[in-house]
Amino acid sequence: MRAENEERNEERNESILEGRNAIREAFRAGQTVERLYVQDGLRDGPVTDLVARARRADVPVDFVQKQRLDQMSQTGRHQGVIAQIAAYQYAQVEDILEKARQKGEDPFIFLLDEIVDPHNLGAIIRTANLCGAHGVIIPKRRAVGLTAVAAKASAGTVSYTPVARVNNLAQTIEELKKQGIWFVCADMDGEVMYNLNLTGPIGLVIGAEGKGVGRLVREKCDFTASIPMKGDIDSLNASVAAGVLAYEIVRQKVQN
Amino acid sequence: MRAENEERNEERNESILEGRNAIREAFRAGQTVERLYVQDGLRDGPVTDLVARARRADVPVDFVQKQRLDQMSQTGRHQGVIAQIAAYQYAQVEDILEKARQKGEDPFIFLLDEIVDPHNLGAIIRTANLCGAHGVIIPKRRAVGLTAVAAKASAGTVSYTPVARVNNLAQTIEELKKQGIWFVCADMDGEVMYNLNLTGPIGLVIGAEGKGVGRLVREKCDFTASIPMKGDIDSLNASVAAGVLAYEIVRQKVQN
Repeated sequence: MRAENEERNEERNESILEGRNAIREAFRAGQTVERLYVQDGLRDGPVTDLVARARRADVPVDFVQKQRLDQMSQTGRHQGVIAQIAAYQYAQVEDILEKARQKGEDPFIFLLDEIVDPHNLGAIIRTANLCGAHGVIIPKRRAVGLTAVAAKASAGTVSYTPVARVNNLAQTIEELKKQGIWFVCADMDGEVMYNLNLTGPIGLVIGAEGKGVGRLVREKCDFTASIPMKGDIDSLNASVAAGVLAYEIVRQKVQN
Repeated sequence: MRAENEERNEERNESILEGRNAIREAFRAGQTVERLYVQDGLRDGPVTDLVARARRADVPVDFVQKQRLDQMSQTGRHQGVIAQIAAYQYAQVEDILEKARQKGEDPFIFLLDEIVDPHNLGAIIRTANLCGAHGVIIPKRRAVGLTAVAAKASAGTVSYTPVARVNNLAQTIEELKKQGIWFVCADMDGEVMYNLNLTGPIGLVIGAEGKGVGRLVREKCDFTASIPMKGDIDSLNASVAAGVLAYEIVRQKVQN
Protein backbone atom coordinates (compact mmCIF):
# COMPACT_ATOMS: atom_id res chain seq x y z
CA MET A 1 0.00 0.00 0.00
CA ARG A 2 2.74 2.37 0.92
CA ALA A 3 4.71 1.59 -2.26
CA GLU A 4 1.60 2.16 -4.31
CA ASN A 5 1.03 5.54 -2.74
CA GLU A 6 4.64 6.47 -3.25
CA GLU A 7 4.30 5.58 -6.91
CA ARG A 8 1.12 7.57 -7.24
CA ASN A 9 2.71 10.57 -5.59
CA GLU A 10 5.68 10.48 -7.85
CA GLU A 11 3.42 10.35 -10.86
CA ARG A 12 1.44 13.19 -9.41
CA ASN A 13 4.56 15.31 -9.15
CA GLU A 14 5.99 14.63 -12.52
CA SER A 15 3.58 13.36 -15.05
CA ILE A 16 -0.04 14.32 -14.80
CA LEU A 17 -1.97 16.92 -16.72
CA GLU A 18 -5.22 18.42 -15.48
CA GLY A 19 -8.07 20.20 -17.23
CA ARG A 20 -9.59 20.05 -20.66
CA ASN A 21 -7.32 22.47 -22.51
CA ALA A 22 -4.05 21.08 -21.19
CA ILE A 23 -5.01 17.54 -22.11
CA ARG A 24 -6.34 18.47 -25.56
CA GLU A 25 -3.05 20.23 -26.27
CA ALA A 26 -1.12 17.16 -25.18
CA PHE A 27 -3.06 15.00 -27.64
CA ARG A 28 -2.57 17.58 -30.40
CA ALA A 29 1.18 17.77 -29.72
CA GLY A 30 1.45 13.99 -29.95
CA GLN A 31 2.57 13.50 -26.33
CA THR A 32 2.20 9.94 -25.07
CA VAL A 33 -0.84 9.85 -22.84
CA GLU A 34 -0.66 6.68 -20.71
CA ARG A 35 -4.17 6.84 -19.36
CA LEU A 36 -7.11 9.24 -19.22
CA TYR A 37 -9.21 9.61 -16.06
CA VAL A 38 -12.69 11.07 -16.62
CA GLN A 39 -15.27 11.95 -14.01
CA ASP A 40 -18.13 9.50 -14.16
CA GLY A 41 -21.28 11.01 -15.66
CA LEU A 42 -19.63 13.96 -17.47
CA ARG A 43 -20.82 14.04 -21.08
CA ASP A 44 -20.34 17.59 -22.32
CA GLY A 45 -18.73 18.37 -25.69
CA PRO A 46 -15.10 18.98 -24.64
CA VAL A 47 -15.04 15.85 -22.45
CA THR A 48 -16.61 13.70 -25.18
CA ASP A 49 -13.97 15.07 -27.57
CA LEU A 50 -11.14 14.05 -25.20
CA VAL A 51 -12.56 10.57 -24.79
CA ALA A 52 -12.83 10.21 -28.57
CA ARG A 53 -9.20 11.36 -29.00
CA ALA A 54 -8.15 8.84 -26.37
CA ARG A 55 -10.03 6.03 -28.10
CA ARG A 56 -8.44 6.88 -31.46
CA ALA A 57 -4.97 6.85 -29.86
CA ASP A 58 -5.85 3.62 -28.06
CA VAL A 59 -5.32 5.20 -24.67
CA PRO A 60 -7.07 3.41 -21.78
CA VAL A 61 -9.91 5.56 -20.35
CA ASP A 62 -10.99 5.18 -16.70
CA PHE A 63 -14.31 6.61 -15.59
CA VAL A 64 -13.93 7.42 -11.89
CA GLN A 65 -15.68 9.20 -9.05
CA LYS A 66 -15.00 12.95 -8.65
CA GLN A 67 -13.44 12.20 -5.26
CA ARG A 68 -10.70 10.11 -6.90
CA LEU A 69 -9.85 12.97 -9.28
CA ASP A 70 -9.80 15.39 -6.33
CA GLN A 71 -7.24 13.13 -4.64
CA MET A 72 -5.03 12.96 -7.75
CA SER A 73 -5.27 16.67 -8.48
CA GLN A 74 -2.46 19.04 -7.59
CA THR A 75 -4.09 22.21 -8.82
CA GLY A 76 -7.59 21.57 -7.50
CA ARG A 77 -8.85 22.52 -11.00
CA HIS A 78 -9.06 19.27 -12.93
CA GLN A 79 -12.45 20.09 -14.50
CA GLY A 80 -13.32 16.39 -14.46
CA VAL A 81 -10.35 15.16 -16.51
CA ILE A 82 -6.80 14.12 -15.62
CA ALA A 83 -4.27 12.55 -17.99
CA GLN A 84 -1.24 10.55 -17.03
CA ILE A 85 1.68 11.34 -19.28
CA ALA A 86 4.62 8.99 -19.95
CA ALA A 87 7.84 10.19 -18.32
CA TYR A 88 9.75 8.85 -21.33
CA GLN A 89 8.96 8.36 -24.99
CA TYR A 90 8.12 4.88 -26.19
CA ALA A 91 9.78 3.26 -29.17
CA GLN A 92 8.20 1.08 -31.86
CA VAL A 93 8.80 -2.67 -32.13
CA GLU A 94 10.47 -1.94 -35.47
CA ASP A 95 13.04 0.26 -33.67
CA ILE A 96 14.07 -2.74 -31.59
CA LEU A 97 14.54 -4.95 -34.66
CA GLU A 98 16.45 -2.15 -36.38
CA LYS A 99 18.82 -1.91 -33.41
CA ALA A 100 19.63 -5.62 -33.77
CA ARG A 101 20.21 -5.20 -37.53
CA GLN A 102 22.52 -2.23 -36.95
CA LYS A 103 24.63 -4.30 -34.57
CA GLY A 104 24.60 -7.29 -36.92
CA GLU A 105 23.16 -9.45 -34.15
CA ASP A 106 20.28 -11.89 -33.85
CA PRO A 107 17.35 -10.05 -32.23
CA PHE A 108 17.21 -10.51 -28.44
CA ILE A 109 14.05 -9.00 -26.97
CA PHE A 110 12.43 -8.97 -23.53
CA LEU A 111 8.63 -9.15 -23.40
CA LEU A 112 6.97 -8.38 -20.08
CA ASP A 113 3.48 -9.69 -19.42
CA GLU A 114 1.64 -7.40 -16.99
CA ILE A 115 4.52 -6.34 -14.73
CA VAL A 116 2.87 -3.86 -12.34
CA ASP A 117 5.71 -2.89 -9.98
CA PRO A 118 7.64 0.07 -11.43
CA HIS A 119 10.81 -0.94 -9.52
CA ASN A 120 10.72 -4.34 -11.20
CA LEU A 121 10.07 -2.76 -14.62
CA GLY A 122 13.06 -0.44 -14.14
CA ALA A 123 15.37 -3.22 -12.92
CA ILE A 124 14.37 -5.40 -15.88
CA ILE A 125 15.07 -2.60 -18.39
CA ARG A 126 18.49 -2.21 -16.71
CA THR A 127 19.14 -5.95 -17.07
CA ALA A 128 18.01 -5.90 -20.71
CA ASN A 129 20.48 -3.10 -21.38
CA LEU A 130 23.40 -4.82 -19.66
CA CYS A 131 22.90 -8.30 -21.09
CA GLY A 132 22.87 -6.92 -24.63
CA ALA A 133 19.16 -7.22 -25.43
CA HIS A 134 17.91 -4.87 -28.15
CA GLY A 135 14.74 -3.72 -26.44
CA VAL A 136 11.78 -4.38 -24.19
CA ILE A 137 8.12 -4.82 -25.17
CA ILE A 138 5.34 -4.21 -22.66
CA PRO A 139 1.54 -4.29 -22.99
CA LYS A 140 -0.53 -1.10 -22.87
CA ARG A 141 -3.04 -2.43 -20.41
CA ARG A 142 -2.79 -3.98 -16.95
CA ALA A 143 0.90 -3.10 -16.69
CA VAL A 144 2.97 -0.23 -15.38
CA GLY A 145 4.43 2.13 -17.99
CA LEU A 146 7.58 4.22 -18.10
CA THR A 147 6.80 6.22 -14.99
CA ALA A 148 9.37 8.33 -13.18
CA VAL A 149 9.87 5.55 -10.61
CA ALA A 150 10.50 2.95 -13.33
CA ALA A 151 12.92 5.29 -15.12
CA LYS A 152 14.85 5.85 -11.89
CA ALA A 153 14.99 2.12 -11.12
CA SER A 154 16.40 1.58 -14.62
CA ALA A 155 19.47 3.60 -13.56
CA GLY A 156 19.17 5.71 -16.69
CA THR A 157 19.16 2.78 -19.14
CA VAL A 158 15.68 3.74 -20.31
CA SER A 159 17.46 6.39 -22.39
CA TYR A 160 19.43 3.70 -24.25
CA THR A 161 17.21 0.64 -24.44
CA PRO A 162 14.07 1.09 -26.55
CA VAL A 163 10.81 0.21 -24.79
CA ALA A 164 7.80 -0.41 -27.04
CA ARG A 165 4.20 -0.63 -25.92
CA VAL A 166 1.75 -2.88 -27.76
CA ASN A 167 -1.98 -3.54 -27.60
CA ASN A 168 -1.76 -7.29 -27.57
CA LEU A 169 1.36 -9.17 -26.56
CA ALA A 170 0.16 -12.50 -27.99
CA GLN A 171 -0.45 -10.89 -31.38
CA THR A 172 2.96 -9.19 -31.33
CA ILE A 173 4.59 -12.56 -30.62
CA GLU A 174 2.68 -14.07 -33.56
CA GLU A 175 3.96 -11.34 -35.89
CA LEU A 176 7.55 -11.58 -34.67
CA LYS A 177 7.53 -15.37 -35.09
CA LYS A 178 6.95 -14.80 -38.81
CA GLN A 179 10.26 -12.93 -38.82
CA GLY A 180 12.10 -15.95 -37.45
CA ILE A 181 12.21 -15.06 -33.77
CA TRP A 182 11.71 -17.88 -31.24
CA PHE A 183 9.95 -17.22 -27.96
CA VAL A 184 10.73 -18.71 -24.59
CA CYS A 185 8.53 -18.05 -21.62
CA ALA A 186 9.47 -18.37 -17.99
CA ASP A 187 7.32 -20.83 -16.04
CA MET A 188 7.88 -23.14 -13.10
CA ASP A 189 6.43 -26.08 -15.04
CA GLY A 190 8.80 -25.69 -17.98
CA GLU A 191 11.90 -27.59 -19.02
CA VAL A 192 14.99 -26.70 -16.96
CA MET A 193 16.61 -23.81 -18.81
CA TYR A 194 20.00 -25.52 -19.14
CA ASN A 195 18.41 -28.23 -21.28
CA LEU A 196 16.92 -25.87 -23.88
CA ASN A 197 18.64 -24.41 -26.90
CA LEU A 198 18.21 -20.68 -26.39
CA THR A 199 20.59 -19.45 -29.10
CA GLY A 200 19.53 -17.59 -32.23
CA PRO A 201 16.90 -14.83 -32.55
CA ILE A 202 15.00 -14.93 -29.28
CA GLY A 203 12.24 -13.27 -27.26
CA LEU A 204 12.27 -13.84 -23.50
CA VAL A 205 8.78 -13.58 -21.98
CA ILE A 206 8.59 -12.73 -18.27
CA GLY A 207 5.31 -12.93 -16.37
CA ALA A 208 3.67 -10.80 -13.74
CA GLU A 209 4.75 -10.91 -10.13
CA GLY A 210 2.86 -13.70 -8.39
CA LYS A 211 0.83 -15.01 -11.32
CA GLY A 212 3.36 -15.71 -14.07
CA VAL A 213 2.85 -15.52 -17.82
CA GLY A 214 -0.80 -15.47 -18.91
CA ARG A 215 -2.21 -18.47 -20.75
CA LEU A 216 -2.80 -16.75 -24.11
CA VAL A 217 0.74 -15.46 -24.22
CA ARG A 218 2.22 -18.74 -22.95
CA GLU A 219 0.49 -20.70 -25.69
CA LYS A 220 2.15 -18.56 -28.34
CA CYS A 221 5.64 -19.37 -27.02
CA ASP A 222 7.87 -22.03 -28.58
CA PHE A 223 9.46 -23.14 -25.31
CA THR A 224 8.74 -22.90 -21.61
CA ALA A 225 11.86 -22.60 -19.48
CA SER A 226 12.11 -23.09 -15.74
CA ILE A 227 14.75 -21.94 -13.30
CA PRO A 228 15.70 -24.78 -10.92
CA MET A 229 14.20 -24.03 -7.50
CA LYS A 230 15.25 -25.74 -4.28
CA GLY A 231 13.63 -23.42 -1.77
CA ASP A 232 10.67 -23.08 0.51
CA ILE A 233 8.55 -20.77 -1.64
CA ASP A 234 7.51 -20.78 -5.29
CA SER A 235 9.23 -18.04 -7.15
CA LEU A 236 12.03 -15.53 -7.44
CA ASN A 237 11.42 -11.80 -7.60
CA ALA A 238 10.38 -11.01 -11.22
CA SER A 239 13.45 -8.89 -11.95
CA VAL A 240 15.81 -11.52 -10.50
CA ALA A 241 14.10 -14.25 -12.57
CA ALA A 242 14.46 -12.09 -15.70
CA GLY A 243 18.16 -11.64 -14.96
CA VAL A 244 18.83 -15.33 -14.37
CA LEU A 245 17.05 -16.37 -17.60
CA ALA A 246 18.60 -13.57 -19.65
CA TYR A 247 22.09 -14.62 -18.56
CA GLU A 248 21.40 -18.26 -19.41
CA ILE A 249 20.66 -16.98 -22.93
CA VAL A 250 23.90 -14.94 -22.85
CA ARG A 251 25.88 -17.99 -21.69
CA GLN A 252 24.52 -20.11 -24.50
CA LYS A 253 25.32 -17.40 -27.05
CA VAL A 254 28.90 -17.12 -25.71
CA GLN A 255 29.59 -20.82 -25.24
CA ASN A 256 27.95 -22.26 -28.38
CA MET B 1 14.81 10.16 -0.21
CA ARG B 2 11.24 8.97 -0.27
CA ALA B 3 12.29 5.29 -0.09
CA GLU B 4 14.50 6.11 2.84
CA ASN B 5 11.66 7.78 4.71
CA GLU B 6 9.38 4.90 3.94
CA GLU B 7 11.95 2.54 5.43
CA ARG B 8 12.36 4.71 8.48
CA ASN B 9 8.62 4.87 9.02
CA GLU B 10 8.22 1.15 8.79
CA GLU B 11 10.98 0.64 11.35
CA ARG B 12 9.34 3.25 13.48
CA ASN B 13 6.11 1.31 13.48
CA GLU B 14 7.44 -2.09 14.16
CA SER B 15 10.83 -2.20 15.68
CA ILE B 16 11.97 0.64 17.89
CA LEU B 17 12.06 0.87 21.65
CA GLU B 18 12.12 4.16 23.53
CA GLY B 19 13.21 5.09 27.02
CA ARG B 20 15.75 3.78 29.48
CA ASN B 21 13.75 1.02 31.15
CA ALA B 22 12.37 -0.50 27.96
CA ILE B 23 15.80 -0.66 26.38
CA ARG B 24 17.51 -2.03 29.51
CA GLU B 25 14.88 -4.79 29.64
CA ALA B 26 15.49 -5.61 25.97
CA PHE B 27 19.21 -6.05 26.67
CA ARG B 28 18.46 -8.17 29.75
CA ALA B 29 16.02 -10.36 27.81
CA GLY B 30 18.64 -10.97 25.12
CA GLN B 31 16.66 -9.28 22.31
CA THR B 32 18.75 -8.40 19.28
CA VAL B 33 19.35 -4.66 19.40
CA GLU B 34 20.47 -3.53 15.95
CA ARG B 35 21.57 -0.05 16.92
CA LEU B 36 21.37 2.30 19.91
CA TYR B 37 20.72 6.04 19.43
CA VAL B 38 21.80 8.22 22.35
CA GLN B 39 21.28 11.95 22.77
CA ASP B 40 24.61 13.73 22.43
CA GLY B 41 25.92 15.02 25.76
CA LEU B 42 23.85 12.77 28.06
CA ARG B 43 26.13 11.12 30.62
CA ASP B 44 23.97 10.17 33.58
CA GLY B 45 24.18 6.73 35.20
CA PRO B 46 21.34 4.89 33.39
CA VAL B 47 22.46 6.17 29.97
CA THR B 48 26.10 5.25 30.65
CA ASP B 49 24.88 1.79 31.67
CA LEU B 50 22.97 1.33 28.39
CA VAL B 51 25.98 2.44 26.36
CA ALA B 52 28.16 -0.04 28.27
CA ARG B 53 25.67 -2.86 27.63
CA ALA B 54 25.60 -1.96 23.94
CA ARG B 55 29.42 -1.97 23.76
CA ARG B 56 29.57 -5.39 25.43
CA ALA B 57 27.00 -6.77 22.98
CA ASP B 58 28.87 -5.10 20.11
CA VAL B 59 25.86 -3.03 19.15
CA PRO B 60 26.67 0.12 17.15
CA VAL B 61 25.99 3.30 19.18
CA ASP B 62 25.09 6.57 17.45
CA PHE B 63 25.29 9.82 19.40
CA VAL B 64 22.78 12.16 17.80
CA GLN B 65 21.09 15.51 18.37
CA LYS B 66 17.91 15.56 20.46
CA GLN B 67 16.01 16.74 17.38
CA ARG B 68 16.80 13.49 15.56
CA LEU B 69 15.46 11.44 18.46
CA ASP B 70 12.33 13.59 18.54
CA GLN B 71 11.78 12.80 14.87
CA MET B 72 12.22 9.05 15.41
CA SER B 73 10.08 8.96 18.53
CA GLN B 74 6.50 7.71 18.45
CA THR B 75 5.70 8.21 22.10
CA GLY B 76 7.37 11.59 22.53
CA ARG B 77 9.03 10.15 25.68
CA HIS B 78 12.36 8.75 24.50
CA GLN B 79 14.32 10.11 27.49
CA GLY B 80 17.36 10.53 25.26
CA VAL B 81 17.63 6.90 24.11
CA ILE B 82 16.07 4.92 21.27
CA ALA B 83 16.97 1.36 20.28
CA GLN B 84 16.32 -0.29 16.96
CA ILE B 85 15.29 -3.90 17.39
CA ALA B 86 15.68 -6.62 14.74
CA ALA B 87 12.35 -7.69 13.24
CA TYR B 88 13.70 -11.24 13.03
CA GLN B 89 16.19 -13.27 15.02
CA TYR B 90 19.65 -13.74 13.58
CA ALA B 91 21.33 -17.10 13.28
CA GLN B 92 24.98 -17.99 13.92
CA VAL B 93 27.44 -18.82 11.16
CA GLU B 94 27.62 -22.31 12.68
CA ASP B 95 23.85 -22.76 12.07
CA ILE B 96 24.47 -22.22 8.35
CA LEU B 97 27.23 -24.82 8.22
CA GLU B 98 25.04 -27.21 10.21
CA LYS B 99 22.22 -26.79 7.68
CA ALA B 100 24.60 -27.86 4.89
CA ARG B 101 25.75 -30.86 6.93
CA GLN B 102 22.18 -31.93 7.63
CA LYS B 103 21.41 -31.87 3.90
CA GLY B 104 24.65 -33.68 3.10
CA GLU B 105 25.63 -30.86 0.73
CA ASP B 106 28.74 -28.75 0.22
CA PRO B 107 28.21 -25.43 2.02
CA PHE B 108 26.82 -22.71 -0.27
CA ILE B 109 26.73 -19.33 1.48
CA PHE B 110 25.94 -15.77 0.42
CA LEU B 111 28.01 -12.98 2.01
CA LEU B 112 26.75 -9.42 1.55
CA ASP B 113 29.21 -6.57 1.89
CA GLU B 114 27.42 -3.42 3.06
CA ILE B 115 24.10 -3.81 1.25
CA VAL B 116 22.07 -0.80 2.46
CA ASP B 117 18.79 -1.14 0.58
CA PRO B 118 16.35 -3.35 2.52
CA HIS B 119 14.50 -4.30 -0.70
CA ASN B 120 17.77 -5.62 -2.14
CA LEU B 121 18.60 -7.47 1.09
CA GLY B 122 15.16 -9.12 1.08
CA ALA B 123 15.32 -10.06 -2.61
CA ILE B 124 18.80 -11.57 -2.09
CA ILE B 125 17.63 -13.66 0.90
CA ARG B 126 14.77 -14.87 -1.32
CA THR B 127 17.24 -15.82 -4.07
CA ALA B 128 19.52 -17.57 -1.54
CA ASN B 129 16.56 -19.62 -0.38
CA LEU B 130 15.42 -20.59 -3.88
CA CYS B 131 18.82 -21.47 -5.33
CA GLY B 132 19.53 -23.83 -2.45
CA ALA B 133 22.07 -21.77 -0.50
CA HIS B 134 22.31 -22.65 3.20
CA GLY B 135 22.40 -19.14 4.58
CA VAL B 136 23.34 -15.47 4.30
CA ILE B 137 26.03 -13.60 6.22
CA ILE B 138 25.87 -9.82 6.61
CA PRO B 139 28.10 -7.37 8.53
CA LYS B 140 26.87 -5.60 11.67
CA ARG B 141 27.99 -2.17 10.57
CA ARG B 142 27.32 -0.04 7.51
CA ALA B 143 24.62 -2.41 6.27
CA VAL B 144 20.89 -2.79 6.60
CA GLY B 145 19.68 -5.52 8.97
CA LEU B 146 16.59 -7.70 9.03
CA THR B 147 14.11 -4.86 9.13
CA ALA B 148 10.42 -5.30 8.46
CA VAL B 149 10.91 -4.02 4.89
CA ALA B 150 13.71 -6.53 4.22
CA ALA B 151 11.62 -9.36 5.67
CA LYS B 152 8.69 -8.41 3.45
CA ALA B 153 10.89 -8.21 0.34
CA SER B 154 12.19 -11.70 1.17
CA ALA B 155 8.65 -13.02 0.58
CA GLY B 156 8.78 -14.86 3.88
CA THR B 157 12.01 -16.76 3.15
CA VAL B 158 13.71 -15.04 6.09
CA SER B 159 11.88 -17.61 8.23
CA TYR B 160 13.60 -20.48 6.42
CA THR B 161 17.04 -19.21 5.41
CA PRO B 162 19.36 -18.43 8.33
CA VAL B 163 20.88 -14.94 8.29
CA ALA B 164 23.96 -14.41 10.46
CA ARG B 165 25.48 -11.06 11.38
CA VAL B 166 29.23 -10.78 11.95
CA ASN B 167 31.57 -8.05 13.16
CA ASN B 168 34.10 -8.41 10.42
CA LEU B 169 33.32 -10.03 7.10
CA ALA B 170 36.99 -10.39 6.10
CA GLN B 171 37.76 -12.23 9.33
CA THR B 172 34.75 -14.53 8.89
CA ILE B 173 35.93 -15.39 5.39
CA GLU B 174 39.39 -16.16 6.79
CA GLU B 175 37.89 -18.56 9.35
CA LEU B 176 35.60 -20.29 6.86
CA LYS B 177 38.49 -20.79 4.43
CA LYS B 178 40.15 -22.96 7.11
CA GLN B 179 37.08 -25.19 6.87
CA GLY B 180 37.61 -25.72 3.16
CA ILE B 181 35.18 -23.16 1.75
CA TRP B 182 36.27 -21.22 -1.34
CA PHE B 183 35.20 -17.61 -1.82
CA VAL B 184 34.24 -15.89 -5.04
CA CYS B 185 33.54 -12.19 -5.14
CA ALA B 186 31.58 -10.33 -7.77
CA ASP B 187 33.55 -7.60 -9.50
CA MET B 188 33.51 -6.08 -12.99
CA ASP B 189 37.26 -6.59 -13.31
CA GLY B 190 37.12 -10.31 -12.57
CA GLU B 191 37.33 -13.35 -14.82
CA VAL B 192 34.11 -14.05 -16.74
CA MET B 193 32.08 -16.33 -14.47
CA TYR B 194 31.66 -19.07 -17.10
CA ASN B 195 35.44 -19.63 -17.09
CA LEU B 196 35.76 -20.22 -13.34
CA ASN B 197 35.24 -23.49 -11.50
CA LEU B 198 32.57 -22.59 -8.94
CA THR B 199 31.73 -26.11 -7.76
CA GLY B 200 32.41 -27.44 -4.28
CA PRO B 201 31.99 -25.63 -0.94
CA ILE B 202 31.54 -21.97 -1.89
CA GLY B 203 30.87 -18.51 -0.49
CA LEU B 204 29.48 -15.92 -2.93
CA VAL B 205 30.41 -12.36 -1.94
CA ILE B 206 28.15 -9.57 -3.24
CA GLY B 207 29.14 -5.92 -2.86
CA ALA B 208 27.26 -2.79 -2.00
CA GLU B 209 25.06 -1.03 -4.52
CA GLY B 210 27.21 1.36 -6.53
CA LYS B 211 30.58 0.66 -4.94
CA GLY B 212 31.02 -3.10 -5.13
CA VAL B 213 32.93 -5.36 -2.75
CA GLY B 214 35.34 -3.51 -0.43
CA ARG B 215 39.09 -3.98 -0.88
CA LEU B 216 39.75 -5.81 2.42
CA VAL B 217 37.01 -8.33 1.72
CA ARG B 218 37.97 -8.71 -1.96
CA GLU B 219 41.56 -9.50 -1.05
CA LYS B 220 40.41 -12.43 1.10
CA CYS B 221 38.54 -14.02 -1.81
CA ASP B 222 39.98 -16.86 -3.88
CA PHE B 223 38.40 -15.76 -7.15
CA THR B 224 36.87 -12.66 -8.64
CA ALA B 225 34.02 -13.35 -11.04
CA SER B 226 32.47 -10.94 -13.50
CA ILE B 227 29.13 -11.03 -15.24
CA PRO B 228 29.54 -10.22 -18.95
CA MET B 229 28.21 -6.69 -19.57
CA LYS B 230 27.34 -5.28 -22.98
CA GLY B 231 25.37 -2.25 -21.93
CA ASP B 232 25.61 1.50 -21.52
CA ILE B 233 26.10 1.64 -17.75
CA ASP B 234 28.35 -0.21 -15.32
CA SER B 235 26.35 -2.54 -13.21
CA LEU B 236 23.24 -4.58 -12.61
CA ASN B 237 21.01 -4.04 -9.62
CA ALA B 238 22.69 -5.79 -6.65
CA SER B 239 19.91 -8.35 -6.20
CA VAL B 240 19.86 -9.16 -9.93
CA ALA B 241 23.67 -9.58 -9.95
CA ALA B 242 23.43 -11.89 -6.92
CA GLY B 243 20.80 -13.98 -8.72
CA VAL B 244 22.81 -14.26 -11.94
CA LEU B 245 25.99 -15.35 -10.11
CA ALA B 246 24.15 -17.71 -7.78
CA TYR B 247 22.56 -19.48 -10.72
CA GLU B 248 25.89 -19.80 -12.50
CA ILE B 249 27.03 -21.68 -9.38
CA VAL B 250 23.84 -23.80 -9.50
CA ARG B 251 24.42 -24.59 -13.18
CA GLN B 252 27.97 -25.71 -12.54
CA LYS B 253 26.80 -27.90 -9.63
CA VAL B 254 24.12 -29.48 -11.83
CA GLN B 255 26.15 -29.88 -15.00
CA ASN B 256 29.51 -31.00 -13.54
